[in-house]
Amino acid sequence: MMTSLSGFPEYTPEEKILEDALLEKLTRVFELHGFSHLETRAVEPLSVLEKKGETSKEVYTLTRLQDKDSGSKAKNGLHFDLTVPLARYVLENAHLLHFPFLRYQIQKVWRGERPQEGRFREFVQADIDMIGQDTLPDHFEIEAPLIMAEALETLPIPRPVVHVNSRKVLEGACTALGITEVDAVLQVIDKHDKVTPEVFSEMLSELGLSAEQVGKIWDLSGISGTDPSVVDEVRALQLDNPLLEEGLEDVARMLRAAALRGRDNVMADFKIARGLDYYTGMVYETFITGAESYGSICSGGRYDNLVSQGKRTFPGVGMSIGLTRLISIILANNWATASRSVPTTVLVLVDSEETRPAADAVAQTLRARGINTEVSPTASKYGKQIKYASTRGIPYVWFVEQGEVKNLLTGDQVPADPAVFEFAPELLKPQVESQDG
Amino acid sequence: MMTSLSGFPEYTPEEKILEDALLEKLTRVFELHGFSHLETRAVEPLSVLEKKGETSKEVYTLTRLQDKDSGSKAKNGLHFDLTVPLARYVLENAHLLHFPFLRYQIQKVWRGERPQEGRFREFVQADIDMIGQDTLPDHFEIEAPLIMAEALETLPIPRPVVHVNSRKVLEGACTALGITEVDAVLQVIDKHDKVTPEVFSEMLSELGLSAEQVGKIWDLSGISGTDPSVVDEVRALQLDNPLLEEGLEDVARMLRAAALRGRDNVMADFKIARGLDYYTGMVYETFITGAESYGSICSGGRYDNLVSQGKRTFPGVGMSIGLTRLISIILANNWATASRSVPTTVLVLVDSEETRPAADAVAQTLRARGINTEVSPTASKYGKQIKYASTRGIPYVWFVEQGEVKNLLTGDQVPADPAVFEFAPELLKPQVESQDG
Repeated sequence: MMTSLSGFPEYTPEEKILEDALLEKLTRVFELHGFSHLETRAVEPLSVLEKKGETSKEVYTLTRLQDKDSGSKAKNGLHFDLTVPLARYVLENAHLLHFPFLRYQIQKVWRGERPQEGRFREFVQADIDMIGQDTLPDHFEIEAPLIMAEALETLPIPRPVVHVNSRKVLEGACTALGITEVDAVLQVIDKHDKVTPEVFSEMLSELGLSAEQVGKIWDLSGISGTDPSVVDEVRALQLDNPLLEEGLEDVARMLRAAALRGRDNVMADFKIARGLDYYTGMVYETFITGAESYGSICSGGRYDNLVSQGKRTFPGVGMSIGLTRLISIILANNWATASRSVPTTVLVLVDSEETRPAADAVAQTLRARGINTEVSPTASKYGKQIKYASTRGIPYVWFVEQGEVKNLLTGDQVPADPAVFEFAPELLKPQVESQDG
Repeated sequence: MMTSLSGFPEYTPEEKILEDALLEKLTRVFELHGFSHLETRAVEPLSVLEKKGETSKEVYTLTRLQDKDSGSKAKNGLHFDLTVPLARYVLENAHLLHFPFLRYQIQKVWRGERPQEGRFREFVQADIDMIGQDTLPDHFEIEAPLIMAEALETLPIPRPVVHVNSRKVLEGACTALGITEVDAVLQVIDKHDKVTPEVFSEMLSELGLSAEQVGKIWDLSGISGTDPSVVDEVRALQLDNPLLEEGLEDVARMLRAAALRGRDNVMADFKIARGLDYYTGMVYETFITGAESYGSICSGGRYDNLVSQGKRTFPGVGMSIGLTRLISIILANNWATASRSVPTTVLVLVDSEETRPAADAVAQTLRARGINTEVSPTASKYGKQIKYASTRGIPYVWFVEQGEVKNLLTGDQVPADPAVFEFAPELLKPQVESQDG
């Protein structure tokens, strides 16, 4: 990954093969579950971008270079996530869409943050969202993390685990404890894993919580597990509240559904809060086993009030993968590499410029069979042409005059007819070789 | 195609299926020829964007919303094509790349032009380029239009024809005629098809050309054909010049190569000039048969001086498809439509919320076989659930309790086991149905 402009990463051709392979795996799982591919424009009116969320101040605004002097009057900016554009798209095009609307969206987003380790100003997000009209059945809140757990498991990373909670549990607990500063408490709970118990308690005390309230919040935040009985550990805290009970039921139902489908990488975790976001039901974060310190690689939740216009509401649930960051983690840990830097399977060698058409004809026959083929750019000595192949990782070279093909990986060279020769299936495309995950 | 923000088009889910199908077809041909997928950042320093070409004045500059007051000091902007970023990427990363470097790049670009019919401010380009280090063999100038002709033929459009010329022919002709205002003459030749012969002559006369010079340029611009002998028609104009002769040889070689490969949709056309661009050798434009009035859908040429740094030069040849514009033409002419609006092949019906897990289990079995499957969002009456499928074009519904599957297109309903039932292969993915091309 190169960043000659700070915060704006670019890939080498090998790294791009890795990214494309990951995109294909994610896309495959999303489409298996019936999600439509959506792409929205990169540019939104500032009125749309400034409406929601904490990130509005990190917007890049656009000005035509010719209108330099009117820079402060910019009306449009680049989107900073894919949820705000989705909300705008759904409201604008509700009459063209069928609900529930299931869509995946994989696009670059931009944030004008100060760049730092692992933070980018231009990066790719891969989102799924399910949007209902007026209502959205609860089982979609169960589907979202199950689908993402399945999608993330296809990637070359150590075991991803989706941690699930419900805002209802946290809000119900606050109500039961007589805490009114719910948002502020959620933001502290968000920091549970990042600070010591002492700092955690201190932050809550500063919000005016009593020692008993702090203790209960601490205990609640510490509860997690994959067995549905984990909700009984919360009940044992005796925080009687109907909203909390509703949230616990949601979490337990989620764990039962995961068990039914044999999915063991989804767990309840009552410290997941998504403090600053617009969620109203279940919330999700995802961690890589053994690499939890990188933070969540895929987060989301249910939102009832993000998309609404007058009496029309479009409740939704969604999750978002920070794909560029995830790939930077994969590269930094060397969890996967591409087997070559080009799609090419065969390099057809050229005996002389005069006989280049013969090499072109072999290439044409191979390509008609779907074999990725290059013709050597120059009729230099075979050794030099073969080096062209080997430096790129092209596995086969074709000798036209001799009518032979050589596998550069095994050294085998055999007589061959371009119309029928069988290439090793695993060498037809660059492979992503997983080192670990 | 919707444009709620003028110049910034968005697709419906059906239209996005069409775009994705086109992208897959193009990508397949580019990779068959060994091109690596490259993606560059969307943002470039203004110093890079302002260096080249006519479009620099249409750049969108970026400012962080927080830095509103310093709008006039913007340092970065959005790229307006994919060639300038490629040049910058190659120079920066030459040490990591292997040359000749063959890459395809399919990305959005932005231009702050006044939007008008068929002009967009945000649109996708699909480019191929082949870049050499110090030298680039001439045969790459032959490959580029042959590859694009092959790629464009896979799209649902009437016959695309690549028109080829060489700048050397036009420059040699000007020299032979004693014309010094070569650039200005090229720009007039560019307008050959858009103006009457009278206006054409008048424009050339205004540049100071004599009646004889005007006549020769008019005659040259009118010559075109697919047979290599077409170059003899140019020779018959008796414009003796070594550069012209070199260009004619290039064009003839191109036509012979096309014939050898059985490719009849590449032709010589001596009015192709690409007036304002940085080309130094062959130049290309592509027209849709019967829809030539839309202008060129894929253009390019050879450039020797675009990518250089001190003594290092990286000559290249490339072509670019204006993909968003092409799709707008396809949609406007109804040349192709997607067979459905979702990837889903099967909707599993839900008998009751209590038995939803049974429907989930059927879906899981189908998905494990690679079948795109949704589970009905509500346990409403069968008629309503089937309508959910039919409005989206989902071809199959699965009755869990009955153990049956129904093809909604044929009406056939049969007992079925989700582990083995054979779906019609053509219904496994949405199809792009070509109406014409």
